[in-house]
Amino acid sequence: MLKFHGYFRSSSSYRCRIAFNLKGIEYEFRPVHLKSGVQKGDAFRQLNPQMLVPALETDEGATLIQSLAIIEWLDETYPDPPVMSRDPLTRAQERGFAQVIACEIHPLQNLRVLNYLTGDLGASEDQKNAWLARWLGDGLAACEELLQQQAGDTRFCFGDTPGLADICLVPQVFSSERFDVDISGLSRVREIYENCTALPEFERAHPGNQPDFEA
Amino acid sequence: MLKFHGYFRSSSSYRCRIAFNLKGIEYEFRPVHLKSGVQKGDAFRQLNPQMLVPALETDEGATLIQSLAIIEWLDETYPDPPVMSRDPLTRAQERGFAQVIACEIHPLQNLRVLNYLTGDLGASEDQKNAWLARWLGDGLAACEELLQQQAGDTRFCFGDTPGLADICLVPQVFSSERFDVDISGLSRVREIYENCTALPEFERAHPGNQPDFEA
Repeated sequence: MLKFHGYFRSSSSYRCRIAFNLKGIEYEFRPVHLKSGVQKGDAFRQLNPQMLVPALETDEGATLIQSLAIIEWLDETYPDPPVMSRDPLTRAQERGFAQVIACEIHPLQNLRVLNYLTGDLGASEDQKNAWLARWLGDGLAACEELLQQQAGDTRFCFGDTPGLADICLVPQVFSSERFDVDISGLSRVREIYENCTALPEFERAHPGNQPDFEA
Repeated sequence: MLKFHGYFRSSSSYRCRIAFNLKGIEYEFRPVHLKSGVQKGDAFRQLNPQMLVPALETDEGATLIQSLAIIEWLDETYPDPPVMSRDPLTRAQERGFAQVIACEIHPLQNLRVLNYLTGDLGASEDQKNAWLARWLGDGLAACEELLQQQAGDTRFCFGDTPGLADICLVPQVFSSERFDVDISGLSRVREIYENCTALPEFERAHPGNQPDFEA
């Protein structure tokens, strides 16, 4: 069985959980308690030299890292139901949208970066919050514009079934709420978020519903 | 003909240029002078609400954003020669490696983030350099470990032909040199960098060889 190393609050772990659930893939969960620093120990480091979650061990003993790479591998290896379009252009737009979140928003909010800001750079709580408001706010505003550019009023980002873009959007909206970033004006983002979170596959992937959850 | 909007110094534009060259794809170059802020004007913003380069306009008038999405679309649309493995596991490892750079290293060094650090947060030049040394240094050290985990001593990251991982590695090493980050101890990274930059497809993509280059 697939072994999934993750952490309840990690956005990128959350993405993978949604993908597992949408595809109905069972996995063995191996919690990595990021706050304790266990990811820096030799055991985990051999698995992922980056010392970050998620990491996925396949049945053949290979290790995959990086959530988007894991999700695309799942989509290729367990193709039904798909989480990406079979049309190259739409698939490129799904990937582009996912990467706006994964390459431009999320990296600026992750734990090690926030720790560096308040630790090494001595940023105040207000400065940290302004940093988060800037990158999460601007980033999700760009997501809203990208979604508004799409033709129809589909239930999800790219059509009427949830896919890679939704898988990335939901954890990012969750983070914006957690960090008190105001995105009330982003109507399409909010609508799709609500359509997604009404589904049990998204609900079961929520950080609050994980075995390693801590209040 | 494909219209490619980029900037000579942008790492993600550099990635796309290498991919175009490896595949022998001609394109019309539309320079976006990031330092002047032209990317924030209405014309570019309609093309990419994220106000970042690169953006690619297809012959059919669609716009693609995000370098990795663009490169995967090129690989699907112009498959010969490929820049990704046809084996799902190797492809996942190539994507994972590329995303270590695109999702964890590069976002912390881009122009708007460095401007925020020295502007809004009032970081000194030394603090900015320490930030860069931390994220570029740690990130490329993780790349070195990932490459050392690979079995053979191939010429490139994943085999004897250059691909997606090399396309991301070369601009990142170029940035580390530009920012004076010491990576002299990363022997495998340096070896692959040299093997890549000896090829004319990489050389022609170098920022110094672009029509919009400024010293």
